[in-house]
Amino acid sequence: MKISVVQNILEANRRIAEENRRRFSQNRLLVINLMSSPGAGKTSLLEKTIRALNTDFRIGVIEGDIQSTYDAERISRAGAPAVQINTGGACHLDSNMVQEALKSLELDPLNLLFIENVGNLVCPAEFHLGEDFKAMILSVAEGDDKPLKYPLMFHESKVLLINKIDLLPFCECNPDLIEERARRINPNLTVFRVSCRTGEGLDRWIGWLREEVREKRQG
Amino acid sequence: MKISVVQNILEANRRIAEENRRRFSQNRLLVINLMSSPGAGKTSLLEKTIRALNTDFRIGVIEGDIQSTYDAERISRAGAPAVQINTGGACHLDSNMVQEALKSLELDPLNLLFIENVGNLVCPAEFHLGEDFKAMILSVAEGDDKPLKYPLMFHESKVLLINKIDLLPFCECNPDLIEERARRINPNLTVFRVSCRTGEGLDRWIGWLREEVREKRQG
Repeated sequence: MKISVVQNILEANRRIAEENRRRFSQNRLLVINLMSSPGAGKTSLLEKTIRALNTDFRIGVIEGDIQSTYDAERISRAGAPAVQINTGGACHLDSNMVQEALKSLELDPLNLLFIENVGNLVCPAEFHLGEDFKAMILSVAEGDDKPLKYPLMFHESKVLLINKIDLLPFCECNPDLIEERARRINPNLTVFRVSCRTGEGLDRWIGWLREEVREKRQG
Repeated sequence: MKISVVQNILEANRRIAEENRRRFSQNRLLVINLMSSPGAGKTSLLEKTIRALNTDFRIGVIEGDIQSTYDAERISRAGAPAVQINTGGACHLDSNMVQEALKSLELDPLNLLFIENVGNLVCPAEFHLGEDFKAMILSVAEGDDKPLKYPLMFHESKVLLINKIDLLPFCECNPDLIEERARRINPNLTVFRVSCRTGEGLDRWIGWLREEVREKRQG
């Protein structure tokens, strides 16, 4: 009984995610579902990314939070249109929430859309939203054992950003171990080591992302 | 329909939590449900706490993880009996999982039992396990906006441990702002500022906890 309820929820989610995906494809829009623990740096990464790519591309953001609009305000100040979803307690976004948010976002001019998920290393990985791919951030302050304990998110992500590398001298965290453990779960993972605070490593991420958007536009 | 399923789950959880609570009370056992984001320092805090109080009290730990037994092994090395719950994907512990774990843990000799929840700042706050109170850890690396964005856990907790204060010079995080925002949600919150890495501030937490265990034993 419990299992069939869960299956129905995931099946309904997949159906609406497909509808979202078709809308995104019509616009040749690259859509990234960005996930992490609370405070790993999703909004900071988006601020830096928007400021770096705003002259090349039109970028939009759907912001997922349980409550509050702080992150959408930060994104707007960085120069991108942002729509806030408040989940009202739910610990992840689902495809239906995204479909609702799309009513408030003009897709036609956009080349790149980020969907910033609720801060949670568990459930967001289970819900497709219609995105091209999932990207996750892990802060080095969280420790190098996280791939062992939260494997699904590492498995589902195309990109892993290891953030806050400026804190490495002060944390008991080996980033080589993060990469090794993450690649054991997902050998095709693309990994970037960055510090949104100092800017270190962001140029590689920005360069890679620029190519991804260009490829998507060319179809 | 969806709401009634959720209500049934929470109601069933509450019933079993009461059974757990009665068992704990018979032993005058202080039980703490420890919650945080992934990597905020739950297991590190338990290691330090066990080593500090092991001569005064008998301490047990129930370890909640989605998968793996790394944390239970760390706790055993610190000198306390530990039972591992693997939730197999679920993002929080519930009272039924704890009741199952109690079959593998001898309660009679214990004075203090920690239940380390799954790393998640959202759902664990909704599920009572039969504990005396909930304690939460927030790492300063997560930022000072977390009470605004994840208010329920701050509301449900009796104790807030602000951890990794040794990282404050390297983070954009004001711990006064964390306290102020958390107390606006929960004015009775007891707050400790600690670093499990350097040991700073742990004496206050240990002293406070010692009194809590003593009061519980006296009934």
